[in-house]
Amino acid sequence: MNFCQRVRSVQRKNRSLVCVGLDTDLNRIPPFLRTHENPIFEFNRRIIEATKDLVCAYKLNLAFYEALAENAWYTVHQTLAAIPEEIITIGDAKRGDIGNSSEMYAKHLIDDYEFTSTTVNPYMGFDSVAPFLKNPRQGAFILAVTSNPGAKDFQYLPVRGRPLYEHVVRKARKWNTGKNCGLVVGATRPAEIQRVRKLAPELPLLIPGVGAQGGDLKAAVRYGCDDKGYLAIINVSRSVIYASQGEDFADAARSATLALRNEINTYRGEFFAKRR
Amino acid sequence: MNFCQRVRSVQRKNRSLVCVGLDTDLNRIPPFLRTHENPIFEFNRRIIEATKDLVCAYKLNLAFYEALAENAWYTVHQTLAAIPEEIITIGDAKRGDIGNSSEMYAKHLIDDYEFTSTTVNPYMGFDSVAPFLKNPRQGAFILAVTSNPGAKDFQYLPVRGRPLYEHVVRKARKWNTGKNCGLVVGATRPAEIQRVRKLAPELPLLIPGVGAQGGDLKAAVRYGCDDKGYLAIINVSRSVIYASQGEDFADAARSATLALRNEINTYRGEFFAKRR
Repeated sequence: MNFCQRVRSVQRKNRSLVCVGLDTDLNRIPPFLRTHENPIFEFNRRIIEATKDLVCAYKLNLAFYEALAENAWYTVHQTLAAIPEEIITIGDAKRGDIGNSSEMYAKHLIDDYEFTSTTVNPYMGFDSVAPFLKNPRQGAFILAVTSNPGAKDFQYLPVRGRPLYEHVVRKARKWNTGKNCGLVVGATRPAEIQRVRKLAPELPLLIPGVGAQGGDLKAAVRYGCDDKGYLAIINVSRSVIYASQGEDFADAARSATLALRNEINTYRGEFFAKRR
Repeated sequence: MNFCQRVRSVQRKNRSLVCVGLDTDLNRIPPFLRTHENPIFEFNRRIIEATKDLVCAYKLNLAFYEALAENAWYTVHQTLAAIPEEIITIGDAKRGDIGNSSEMYAKHLIDDYEFTSTTVNPYMGFDSVAPFLKNPRQGAFILAVTSNPGAKDFQYLPVRGRPLYEHVVRKARKWNTGKNCGLVVGATRPAEIQRVRKLAPELPLLIPGVGAQGGDLKAAVRYGCDDKGYLAIINVSRSVIYASQGEDFADAARSATLALRNEINTYRGEFFAKRR
């Protein structure tokens, strides 16, 4: 299966477009876990155990793991080992460098950690992205429109009558020869999700920004899915993983994930039922 | 001293614009070092010892260190500890993420590792860059025009009659309130170095791509320096650090660095002597 097929397959199996972002911060996990030998891993392990039948993907933002310094490598490695094989894992690293350096990043993220996919920054162009697309089973989500305020600084600049991000989308489609290229579009930008989906009907879209960042869930589903109601990967981090600060945090995360999955599936029924 | 002053100060003290890129690859270091407990650190330590009076900066591309997995943190940490305090260290990480994640990256690179500066990708805009510019003593080099072929994919797209990279340069000047913002311009692009220096007369320019990538050294000096012959930081990696595969590798690196420094200073004399 190529990466795009793998996304569709797990979304069908778990009837879920939900991606849980394991942006685990030592200062925000339940205090009782802090005495554990590796509190971050223990937190992740319990969240995964409680939610793994309800998600299509887990996303690890590497910024949170690098901050662990000498414990970074082990923590990521152990966390990935706790995730069932068919679930997509996303190394949210936003890397991009000249060819030989991007090769090193890709080798680390894809070969050593064995992430199913990564996020990649497009600014340095094709040779910076290519190493992440080598294996058709493993994907790369290229940043198109991000959910943060700074997205406005460059991503919307007009290039030949179209915003810069549309040029990124067009290139990404060209780079999709292995059927393993995806795009990142923030849930805070519903009009742009619609536009990106129109330009790239067949690409998986990673949509962060629902929850703490205030993105529009209904629009993310309506505009982010392909014509059959798949291929939108809707990421939520803080509002799920920190749903409770008590001993019940994993149960609370499960409830929040379930509620999100069901809300998404209600919208999918509304918008795509007739086409499935 | 702010970051810009620190660059000028060490360039004056060591009479050097040379930055040695410690892109250390286990497969390329002299074979006799491989039996050492930490071959990468031992290689770096000896290169630093042999060149530290001849450079203004050392640049560590994090791609090469992350590939070390569980040894990454310790190796970077020890390497930085071997570099004299006044020399600029550049964490070449090309990071950039939404605000709270960029905060984590910046905390790791600047507070934990204590890099003097980092490289940052501009695509996600101001809030992705700001955490790297918080402390005026510590700088951020924002990617403007990169040395790789893929630079052509987006960096030159026309935006209101100017290439995208010029908009990055203009924003970087606005973000330079702490006098700690720099730019990256590849040595393979002399015309763009000239243009960037014209648009940003007062910003340090990190210029990689001399050596293995075939950049134009003379043009990098002529167009990259400010009007007094400073603030160009000319990076060379492979052609210096792998100058010899024998026991004399550190001496060979010193000779290559010295030759480069002298060649650069000859050009500086030619172009800037009257203005100093």
